Amino acid sequence: MSVEGPTLAVVGTGLMGASVALAARRAGLVGAVVGADPDPAASRAAVDVGAIDRVVTAAEAMAMADILVIGAPPRAVAGLVLVAAERADAAALIMDLASVKEPILEAVDDAFPLTHHYISVHPMAGDSRSGPAAARADLFDGAPVLLTPSVSTRPEAIERARPFWEGLGGVVHQRIPSEHDALMAGVSHLPQLLAYALAASLHGLYADPAEIRAAAGPGLAGAVRTSTSSADLWCDILASNADNVRRALGALSAQLTRLDEALASAAAGDRAALRAALDQAVRAGAAVDPSRARLEPGEPSA
Amino acid sequence: MSVEGPTLAVVGTGLMGASVALAARRAGLVGAVVGADPDPAASRAAVDVGAIDRVVTAAEAMAMADILVIGAPPRAVAGLVLVAAERADAAALIMDLASVKEPILEAVDDAFPLTHHYISVHPMAGDSRSGPAAARADLFDGAPVLLTPSVSTRPEAIERARPFWEGLGGVVHQRIPSEHDALMAGVSHLPQLLAYALAASLHGLYADPAEIRAAAGPGLAGAVRTSTSSADLWCDILASNADNVRRALGALSAQLTRLDEALASAAAGDRAALRAALDQAVRAGAAVDPSRARLEPGEPSA
Repeated sequence: MSVEGPTLAVVGTGLMGASVALAARRAGLVGAVVGADPDPAASRAAVDVGAIDRVVTAAEAMAMADILVIGAPPRAVAGLVLVAAERADAAALIMDLASVKEPILEAVDDAFPLTHHYISVHPMAGDSRSGPAAARADLFDGAPVLLTPSVSTRPEAIERARPFWEGLGGVVHQRIPSEHDALMAGVSHLPQLLAYALAASLHGLYADPAEIRAAAGPGLAGAVRTSTSSADLWCDILASNADNVRRALGALSAQLTRLDEALASAAAGDRAALRAALDQAVRAGAAVDPSRARLEPGEPSA
Repeated sequence: MSVEGPTLAVVGTGLMGASVALAARRAGLVGAVVGADPDPAASRAAVDVGAIDRVVTAAEAMAMADILVIGAPPRAVAGLVLVAAERADAAALIMDLASVKEPILEAVDDAFPLTHHYISVHPMAGDSRSGPAAARADLFDGAPVLLTPSVSTRPEAIERARPFWEGLGGVVHQRIPSEHDALMAGVSHLPQLLAYALAASLHGLYADPAEIRAAAGPGLAGAVRTSTSSADLWCDILASNADNVRRALGALSAQLTRLDEALASAAAGDRAALRAALDQAVRAGAAVDPSRARLEPGEPSA
């Protein structure tokens, strides 16, 4: 039985790759879907959840693709993109999903053949669970999707990628790679680093972790929700964007130093500096919190 | 029309006080419910959402109560508890809901008449919204509820408070006040301080906050969700527990310094220290995350 529509090939059938497949099927954007993963359990699971029709090798995936999605750790992406340009049809649309763009595109730009269509994409969606078993067709509904064109990008690649990601439910924006990485340092990589640091410091502060879990309210659950995310992948992301992340971490550390000094004054009876710092933080929170349209006065979620 | 059951009086009809009233009604634990608040809009709103039957003065609430719940900022609680002991019937059960216990109980213990029944309670529940309009009958379902007895607590007060809070849906634990405050510094006050500091530093790092909101994924939303919580109440909470919070903040800052050094090494090509720090954080996260039973391998919510 033949299936109408372009063939989608997914190299890397983890949470993101498998969710792209499910969402593209839901939207009716693709016909056959094949997938490859260095971990055989991950590609089998992607079949089990209905994300891909069958498992192929990465080389086969690249050769079969009308649309090729590369969902791999940053360190592997540039190499896979360049191999894909060797193996894929010139009409195929090649996309990666990496969280860091500048080092990848620097490597790709030097070597990518402009006979082919390639655009780097970062869908800002995820789940604290991982792997194809956590994949969802609605993962990208309402999610920002950043296209990061560079000198290796032909305009046709952007024109084809935009309706694809809108069809998957995303809200498409465009950024140059260096702007993308600087922004991600603050809105994604620093929060992840903080979740790790908070979990590690709590584990060191209290002898019995069961005590922490038993007494924790919704504030802690939200703050450490991502602290079990893969050290392997996040080491790669953070190292690939280290300079930007260190700049963001420096700004955060300056705020923490100011708050620590304000707490010392408050302990000595003068709460003015603490109150001023918190007032400023609440105004900043109202400006940056993506889930709030406006600041509401009143009491907190203490 | 008379209502069967003990009269519940709530002094402070914000999110917590009004939610106690709704949950106690849902459980059939109380008859009439009255409420007082220094902000007339808050007490009227508590009537509007069906939390209380009518608005009274704080003095009237104390005099009418079979069960008296004081939902006020930490700085106001000790005074209200001592006034309540003057005005309430000796058989009434008096409870406060403050997030910090040691300074309150030091003040109460010196003066509380042991003719009366008082127990300090901290339900670990909340919402990023505030005020009686955000109150919910199910706010305490599954939430840890810490009873913090001290020398002013008669055993009967504990025996009466435990089934009341279990009836509201909570999971009741008992801690001495100093242990409670040391634990809260890590599991509640430090995460709140981090949400404030993260919002303030992002606002400083990027010229346009709309840029941040547009590019933000679920990680940022979770990390800054509480950053608009009341500066007035949190200044009071953090100042009241300043020494414990500074100790927790010191542990966090040490982790951040270690991560910054590891990022510097990674930028120079050596990722070993970063990987070791993240591996340790993931193990800590699996131990402390209240929402996870076990650690799952695989990719993250990048």
